[in-house]
Amino acid sequence: MDFLMRPIGHVRSPYTATRDIPKGLGSAHSAEGALDILPEFEPGLADIEGFSHLYVIWVFDRAGAPSLTATSPSDNRPHGVFATRSPQRPNPIGLTVVELISREGRVLRVRGIDMLDGTPILDIKPYLSSIRAGDLRRGWLAEAEARAAGARPEHVPASKNASS
Amino acid sequence: MDFLMRPIGHVRSPYTATRDIPKGLGSAHSAEGALDILPEFEPGLADIEGFSHLYVIWVFDRAGAPSLTATSPSDNRPHGVFATRSPQRPNPIGLTVVELISREGRVLRVRGIDMLDGTPILDIKPYLSSIRAGDLRRGWLAEAEARAAGARPEHVPASKNASS
Repeated sequence: MDFLMRPIGHVRSPYTATRDIPKGLGSAHSAEGALDILPEFEPGLADIEGFSHLYVIWVFDRAGAPSLTATSPSDNRPHGVFATRSPQRPNPIGLTVVELISREGRVLRVRGIDMLDGTPILDIKPYLSSIRAGDLRRGWLAEAEARAAGARPEHVPASKNASS
Repeated sequence: MDFLMRPIGHVRSPYTATRDIPKGLGSAHSAEGALDILPEFEPGLADIEGFSHLYVIWVFDRAGAPSLTATSPSDNRPHGVFATRSPQRPNPIGLTVVELISREGRVLRVRGIDMLDGTPILDIKPYLSSIRAGDLRRGWLAEAEARAAGARPEHVPASKNASS
């Protein structure tokens, strides 16, 4: 069963080419931009200005063909695509947490843009909670960061849950 | 322009009816379940066992017709749908952060399920970072919580960014 998704708006971003978007270890996503929501959906934004951060669910509309493995800019080893944020996913869905700076009618000014200009937006949700940093394991990314730092990873269990 | 999305697998959940899912203020999502990924996508799971938490992007496949306003179980006042997690969204996309307990081949055992049994999964991504709690504003939800507690909200700015 397939599902048809239709944009509720588009991202206004300083990035017009993928190569302009900071990627990989330690990349900062501080770019400002806007979520330009279509007029018909503006009533859906009521009260959104009370939230400091939002989830934006969007479409990688200029990604290449999907692949089940991906090599991240953060590592030189391939990983399963679902263990990465590669654009070339079976469903080309992107997810970004942005900081809401202000709302001007149907336009949300935001910080933390990592999408291309014109990217279709499928959904916006309030960002409500977070996992405490101490409870988080970051898998191959922590290992890659440790390698990049020339140090051994400290808290990377040896894939104790792995199988197949 | 529309986008066609196809499930990569399905949620195995103890919940078979929406009314069984804990909702509203202080509801705990500690239910265990599984993400049952279709065999053809199993290679995409490589290395996912190194992450403690995952984003699951899924479809509200049994939601009613979309509405641009929603009344959350956490509040008795309507809000714009994009300021809520209502299922009745223009694109019926759900987002849940789950804790990965273990992987058994193409099945991920997880904690924190809030989906119905059989829910179609569109994408899985590693959960990599979080916003510090002190940097987070929670909009109408903080106000509703404060009202529920019979107290005045402490850190709710008076919609200083609101317009329209």
